[in-house]
Amino acid sequence: MEKMAYIRILRDLREDADLTQTQVAEILGTSQTMYARYERGANEMPIHHLITLSRYYQVSTDYLLGLDTNR
Amino acid sequence: MEKMAYIRILRDLREDADLTQTQVAEILGTSQTMYARYERGANEMPIHHLITLSRYYQVSTDYLLGLDTNR
Repeated sequence: MEKMAYIRILRDLREDADLTQTQVAEILGTSQTMYARYERGANEMPIHHLITLSRYYQVSTDYLLGLDTNR
Repeated sequence: MEKMAYIRILRDLREDADLTQTQVAEILGTSQTMYARYERGANEMPIHHLITLSRYYQVSTDYLLGLDTNR
């Protein structure tokens, strides 16, 4: 997978929404520690979190994964 | 997540391509046993497999996840 594209997009979407890692972790029902691991690519984010975030940020999962430049 | 949509689409794409679970497992570099668990929803498929399959079947990840009816 394009791991670098994916983690950059994850961080950019969060920062564009003016959210902290803790706030996004709460949206996902996970800890800040675990979310931080997803955002730096230490752990791969599960698909159900991918879906939750694509809805929250109103972007496609293809955009979030760096497969499509259109939101 | 729409688990039922996702696993039905996973199976339909495989059957439309006339592939066995063993063949798709080989594409993913995993075992038939593990792939079968993804297809029946016993385990959630990792994101890197989602990306591999969306490329292989030439569909969007949104389509594969049941979030978009357009391929």
